[in-house]
Amino acid sequence: MKRMKTSTGTLYGIGVGPGDPEWITFKAHRILTSTPVIAYPKSRPDRESYALNIVKEWIDPDQQEQLPLLFPMDGGESVRRAAREEAARRLWQPLREGRDVAFITEGDPLMYSTFIHVMTGIKAQGEEVPIRVIPGVSSVHGAAACLQLPLAEGEEKIAILPAPARAEELEEWMRTHDTVVLLKVAKVLDSLIDVLSQKGWLEKACVMTRVSTREEVVCHDLSELKGRTLPYFTLMILKKDGQGRENPWASRWREERSI
Amino acid sequence: MKRMKTSTGTLYGIGVGPGDPEWITFKAHRILTSTPVIAYPKSRPDRESYALNIVKEWIDPDQQEQLPLLFPMDGGESVRRAAREEAARRLWQPLREGRDVAFITEGDPLMYSTFIHVMTGIKAQGEEVPIRVIPGVSSVHGAAACLQLPLAEGEEKIAILPAPARAEELEEWMRTHDTVVLLKVAKVLDSLIDVLSQKGWLEKACVMTRVSTREEVVCHDLSELKGRTLPYFTLMILKKDGQGRENPWASRWREERSI
Repeated sequence: MKRMKTSTGTLYGIGVGPGDPEWITFKAHRILTSTPVIAYPKSRPDRESYALNIVKEWIDPDQQEQLPLLFPMDGGESVRRAAREEAARRLWQPLREGRDVAFITEGDPLMYSTFIHVMTGIKAQGEEVPIRVIPGVSSVHGAAACLQLPLAEGEEKIAILPAPARAEELEEWMRTHDTVVLLKVAKVLDSLIDVLSQKGWLEKACVMTRVSTREEVVCHDLSELKGRTLPYFTLMILKKDGQGRENPWASRWREERSI
Repeated sequence: MKRMKTSTGTLYGIGVGPGDPEWITFKAHRILTSTPVIAYPKSRPDRESYALNIVKEWIDPDQQEQLPLLFPMDGGESVRRAAREEAARRLWQPLREGRDVAFITEGDPLMYSTFIHVMTGIKAQGEEVPIRVIPGVSSVHGAAACLQLPLAEGEEKIAILPAPARAEELEEWMRTHDTVVLLKVAKVLDSLIDVLSQKGWLEKACVMTRVSTREEVVCHDLSELKGRTLPYFTLMILKKDGQGRENPWASRWREERSI
């Protein structure tokens, strides 16, 4: 086994999945329970960390240092950039001392995740820091599993994107793909529902929030959602052929499984 | 806890990830080690099952029945349809007797997976069979993790699709997405490389085969691949901005980790 010529610690980016602790991989668990510093993102100082909540039973506060890092969702680009730079500085400290750091993130670390900024920030420090990324179950696959909705088979094509501010763009995405997954739909939900309704596509769509958690909501009838405020982690899956949206087991599964 | 009014067994669709047994979730492991019948796909009678190989250490042949199911890759649509119907019939047997069946599949069960056919076939039997899907790490997230390549951040858009037979179509996919993931690239690799070369895009692409296994190959320099025969499980990730393809750690990580 080759060893790297480096005296810094290793930075691990660990995907902890969308919410159910049982959806975490053995590798994520092994690193989480054996790494001296556990770093995690928070959107506000007074809020709990979503990612930490998923795995907190596995962290030993007597043996492992906890390093909360602030990644504000609002406040503009300059505020966010300053927060990312501060996070990289705080992560660099234990790494420079030769201590390994596990940065946990909901879903997968390389899809719309704060870990991407963390990795970029650490690479920009100028010194070669060993980085390892442990993939996680993304909310896209998690939602598909809950809904029993095939994302794609055969020659089908998938698009994954944040919900477009101009909901009319949806027509083009539906024309060119068999499955369209929209993330962060909460802020544009009403205009999305309007467009789907105009096109006669309401039956092609499912909405899920907080996949695999106790707060999970599945909605097949989008007209119910008009005017409602949904959480940030809300996604919509659209199937061009409408196939698979009827799933009598989805809600029962939710009641039966232990989370 | 509600119980369903059914006397059939439950069908589990279990994603076992792209190859590394440590990338399997706790839930997949729990079901795999406690379910009386383990079903798995094979592409040919004389070949080993890729999915079974990932988890075979956890299966107890004295306690658990093994049910290999044939899903031929070639032979035309009628051969494949007949094989799917036969697979559904063979799965229906233990389910009808009230025994739970875990069907394992590489990657995620609902993205280009044989489990989609299995689920459809069992639903078509006419009797309500409880079905549960356990998501897995897909090769897309696995490859991104190995390459340390962000799939998307912020407002970026991802396409996932089988490599198009007309490689020229790539231009349109690159125009409308920030990241394009092409699956099953082996059979059209040469024409893809030609198109990328014409466009000056060779540096925007990475190719990976058998992500996270001992046979894993990472290739950043696609010109090396011209004329070579690569395995079925070969994918290509294209980044519009070319960002992130330089990763000095990818090959070292492969040498260092235990698989």
